[in-house]
Amino acid sequence: MAYFRIEYYSRALRRETSFEVLIPNDPREGMPEPAEPMRTLFLLHGYTGKAGNYVPWEMPAQYNFAVVMPSAENSFYLNGLSTGHAFQTFVGEELVDYVRKTFRLALSPGDTGIAGLSMGGFGALHTGLAYPETFGKIGAMSSAFIVHEVAKMQPGGGNEVANYDYYRECFGEPALLEESDNNPETLVRKLKAAGAKIPAIYMSCGTEDFLIENNREMHRFLEAEGVPHEYHEAPGIHDMVFWSEHIRKIVCWMFG
Amino acid sequence: MAYFRIEYYSRALRRETSFEVLIPNDPREGMPEPAEPMRTLFLLHGYTGKAGNYVPWEMPAQYNFAVVMPSAENSFYLNGLSTGHAFQTFVGEELVDYVRKTFRLALSPGDTGIAGLSMGGFGALHTGLAYPETFGKIGAMSSAFIVHEVAKMQPGGGNEVANYDYYRECFGEPALLEESDNNPETLVRKLKAAGAKIPAIYMSCGTEDFLIENNREMHRFLEAEGVPHEYHEAPGIHDMVFWSEHIRKIVCWMFG
Amino acid sequence: MAYFRIEYYSRALRRETSFEVLIPNDPREGMPEPAEPMRTLFLLHGYTGKAGNYVPWEMPAQYNFAVVMPSAENSFYLNGLSTGHAFQTFVGEELVDYVRKTFRLALSPGDTGIAGLSMGGFGALHTGLAYPETFGKIGAMSSAFIVHEVAKMQPGGGNEVANYDYYRECFGEPALLEESDNNPETLVRKLKAAGAKIPAIYMSCGTEDFLIENNREMHRFLEAEGVPHEYHEAPGIHDMVFWSEHIRKIVCWMFG
Amino acid sequence: MAYFRIEYYSRALRRETSFEVLIPNDPREGMPEPAEPMRTLFLLHGYTGKAGNYVPWEMPAQYNFAVVMPSAENSFYLNGLSTGHAFQTFVGEELVDYVRKTFRLALSPGDTGIAGLSMGGFGALHTGLAYPETFGKIGAMSSAFIVHEVAKMQPGGGNEVANYDYYRECFGEPALLEESDNNPETLVRKLKAAGAKIPAIYMSCGTEDFLIENNREMHRFLEAEGVPHEYHEAPGIHDMVFWSEHIRKIVCWMFG
Repeated sequence: MAYFRIEYYSRALRRETSFEVLIPNDPREGMPEPAEPMRTLFLLHGYTGKAGNYVPWEMPAQYNFAVVMPSAENSFYLNGLSTGHAFQTFVGEELVDYVRKTFRLALSPGDTGIAGLSMGGFGALHTGLAYPETFGKIGAMSSAFIVHEVAKMQPGGGNEVANYDYYRECFGEPALLEESDNNPETLVRKLKAAGAKIPAIYMSCGTEDFLIENNREMHRFLEAEGVPHEYHEAPGIHDMVFWSEHIRKIVCWMFG
Repeated sequence: MAYFRIEYYSRALRRETSFEVLIPNDPREGMPEPAEPMRTLFLLHGYTGKAGNYVPWEMPAQYNFAVVMPSAENSFYLNGLSTGHAFQTFVGEELVDYVRKTFRLALSPGDTGIAGLSMGGFGALHTGLAYPETFGKIGAMSSAFIVHEVAKMQPGGGNEVANYDYYRECFGEPALLEESDNNPETLVRKLKAAGAKIPAIYMSCGTEDFLIENNREMHRFLEAEGVPHEYHEAPGIHDMVFWSEHIRKIVCWMFG
Repeated sequence: MAYFRIEYYSRALRRETSFEVLIPNDPREGMPEPAEPMRTLFLLHGYTGKAGNYVPWEMPAQYNFAVVMPSAENSFYLNGLSTGHAFQTFVGEELVDYVRKTFRLALSPGDTGIAGLSMGGFGALHTGLAYPETFGKIGAMSSAFIVHEVAKMQPGGGNEVANYDYYRECFGEPALLEESDNNPETLVRKLKAAGAKIPAIYMSCGTEDFLIENNREMHRFLEAEGVPHEYHEAPGIHDMVFWSEHIRKIVCWMFG
Repeated sequence: MAYFRIEYYSRALRRETSFEVLIPNDPREGMPEPAEPMRTLFLLHGYTGKAGNYVPWEMPAQYNFAVVMPSAENSFYLNGLSTGHAFQTFVGEELVDYVRKTFRLALSPGDTGIAGLSMGGFGALHTGLAYPETFGKIGAMSSAFIVHEVAKMQPGGGNEVANYDYYRECFGEPALLEESDNNPETLVRKLKAAGAKIPAIYMSCGTEDFLIENNREMHRFLEAEGVPHEYHEAPGIHDMVFWSEHIRKIVCWMFG
C-alpha cells in the first residue's frame, strides 16, 4: 500500500505543515488494480497524538479506500480563536479540496467517511456534521464529548488535562459554547431545522472508558432528536486495544 | 551529511511532534571523521515556515557542527498561555536535553549557538538570553522585534498578520508584555542585574527590510545597556536572498 | 511548494521503495492557483546520490511544473541483469504510469521532460530516447557517457569507481553493449531507422569536467547522425556549482 | 517512542541511503526515563520488504531496547559481487559502528540482538554468526535457508522468485557457495574450529510454511554440530500473522 507523507503550505494554519495519505494503488504482481472510484477515510487522532497513530493496515486494500491523516495537534478539530488555529477549516475544507485536486479522492459524500478516537471522535462527529455535503459517514470512538464541561469553565479554571486558556482557545468563549457551532448538538439542530441530510453516524465506546457517560449522553441526545445512528458499547477502556478492534468495525460499517 | 527526521513525544507541547537534525558524521571515502566535540547550531525558522527552510548545506561538514531544527509553528518561540503551547521550553530546554542525551550534542555554551530569521531571529535572541548557560552565541537576522507593537494591542485589534487573540496567546497579556520575560529587553536587564554572562550576539538586517527600524531599535537598546554585540546592515529585503548570504556570515562568526 | 515522499511497492524493483515529488499546487495567500496542465520534470541524481540532491527550488512554482525524483541507486537507470534491477522500467515506465494515475502528471510528451547530472545525465538521455512517446525534452548535464569504456572491460577489470561485476550487472555483457539498447547511440539509430520523433536534447558540460571528452564525443555523434540538439560548454568542473547554475538553464530551455 | 528516519552516506553501499531507528527515550508525563544501558535489536525485513514492515510497537518501551531497521533491498544481507552491494558490511559493520558513535547503542554483544523473517531470518543468522563479537543473540523466523538450492543453480536457471544473475550477484558463484562464508554452516564450522563463542540462537517456523523443511534442515545441522539453540515450530504459514506473534516471543527470549 502506497504511503504519502506530504509537506505543504496550509492557508488555514498559515504555515507549512504535513499530513499523511495511504492509497492502495500499488498492487503486487498478479493482484488487480484497485476499482474506481476509490473511497476515502479521513482518520483523526486523539489528544497528544498525530497522524498515523492507529491504522488498520490491512483494510484499505481489502475494502478499496484511501486514508487521509492530518496532524491537528491538540486542537479538537475546531477553529480556535487565534489566527492560524483554523483546524476545522484545515480538515473539513482545505484538506478535502487538496486531496480532491491532487488525488481525485473524496469526490462525493457517498465515497467519503470521517472517523476518529477520543478528541478525534469529537472531531469526526463535529466535522462530519459541519460538512454533510462532504462526509457521508461518521465513525466516532470513545469520543471526548466535553462541550458541557468546557461550557462551565471559568478563567483560572480548566481541568487536569489542560488549563482554561487552552479550552478557550480551542472552543471559544465557554459561556457561548453551547449555542455555538463548535457544539455538535447545535449543528444537529441547525441541520434538522434546515431539513438537511445528516450523515450516517456510528458511535462506540468502552464500558470502562472514563468518557462512557459523555458518549451515552450524546447517544440520548441523538435519540431525542430523532437522528438515526448506530450506538455500541463493549467491554473496554480508553486504549489501543479497544480502538484496534473497533476501528475495524467502523470501516466494515462504512465501506463493507 | 546525515539527516535525521525525528518524531517523538514532547512533554512541553503535550503531543507527538517532529524535528530535524543534521550531523556531518558520515564522511565519504577518504575524508576524515569529524573532530570532537562537534558544535551545535539551533536553527529557527520564521513565521509561516518550518524546520529546514533554509540551511547552508555545505557548512556543517566544513565547520564541524550539527544543526538542530525544530518546527515551532507560529509560536514566536515563547511559552504561550495555553497548555501545550510551551515553545520556549520546547526549544530552550526539552530539545536541548533531548539532543544532549540522544546525540551528546550541545554539551556546553561554548559549543552551542542559536540563530534564526524574522520570527526566528526574535526567537534566537529571546531563547539565547533566556538560557545563557546553554547558548553561547546568538545570531539574529531580520528579526521580528515586535514586542512594543504587541504591547499596545487591544482586544479586537491585531494587525494585518494576525489577530489579537493570536498575539495574546503567544506573548501573554499585552499590557504586561514589556515587563515580562517574553520581552528580550527584560531578560537583558535581569542578566545585567544578576551579573550574569550574556551570550555573544550578532544581528543583521536588510536596509530595505520592513523590520529594519525594529532591528535598529534593538541595536540602540543593546548599545544603551552596554551589551557587546555585532550589528550589521546590508542592502536587501526580507527574503531568502538576504538570508542565504547572511546565515553564512553568522555561521562563520559563530564557528569560524 | 508541496513535497511528497512516497513509499510504494515497485514491481520493476520487486520491492518496496520510495521516491519524491514536488508539486507547486499550494500557493500562499493571494497567489493564483497553478495553471493546467502542469508540466512534469523527471530529475535524475548521479552516482552515489539519491532523490532530492539538487533541486532548483524556486523554479517549479515560477514555471508551473512538478518534479518527480526517483532514487535509482547506482543503476545507471538501466535494466540490469538481475531480477529486480529493472531501473529503466522503473523510471521510464512504472513511475510514469504511477504519477499519471495518481497525480495526472506527465500526460503527454509535450508536457514532460527528463534531466539529470553525471550518471543521471546518461540516464536522462538514455531513458528519454527509450521512451520518446513519454519524454518530449531531455536535459543532460556533465553526463557519464561511458558506454565505450565499459564495452572494453574484461572480467577482473573495472576501474577506480567500481569493479567489473558492477558494470556487467548495470550494462549487461560488455561485449554486447555497443549494439545493445543500453547504448544511447543504438537508440538514436533505431529511432532514425523507424522515422520516429526524437526528443529535443540539451547537453551541457564544464570544460574542466573529467567527463568533457565523453560529452564532446556524444555531441559529435549526434551531429554526425543529424540529430538536432543544443550543446553547451562552460567553465566548470564536475560539481554542484556547475549543476546549480546549469539545471536552471535547462529548466528555462525546457519550460521557459 | 521516538522514531528516527536517517539519511546518510553509506561507504559500504557507495551511495546515500536511509535507515530507521526506534528509541524509547521520550517517556510521557509521569513515566520514568529508560534505564541504562538500553539494549539494541537489529530487525531485518524479508524479500520485497523494507525497514519498518513489522515492529512490535509496544515492546521497546516495555523491555527497554532500541530497534535499528535497515532497508537492505533484496540482498540477502550478503556482500554481493558488485561494488556497492556490500550489504553484509553495511548491516554488520557500518550500521553497528554508526549507531555506536551516534547513539551509543549496541555497545556489547550482551546488549545486542539481531532478528529477522524469511530473507531477514537468513540475514539474522548469517550476520550474527559473521559478527559474534557484536551480536549476542540471534532470532530467525521462517528463514530462507536456501543456500543448498542456490548452490545447484546453473546459468540461465534460477527459480520462480528470481533469475540466476540475481542469485549469483547476491550469493557469489553458486559452485563455490557451500564452502564460502556466505553459507551460515561454514561460519558455524569456522567458529567451532576457532573455539569462538557462538551467539545464542532462537529459530521458529510455521508448520505450513513453504520453508519449513529448510528450517528443519538447519535445525538438524545445528544439532549435529552440537550448537545450542532453541527451535520452535507452530501452526502457521509464511505470513504476518505468524510473524506478529513470533517476533514477540523472540523479543521476550532476547530481552525478557
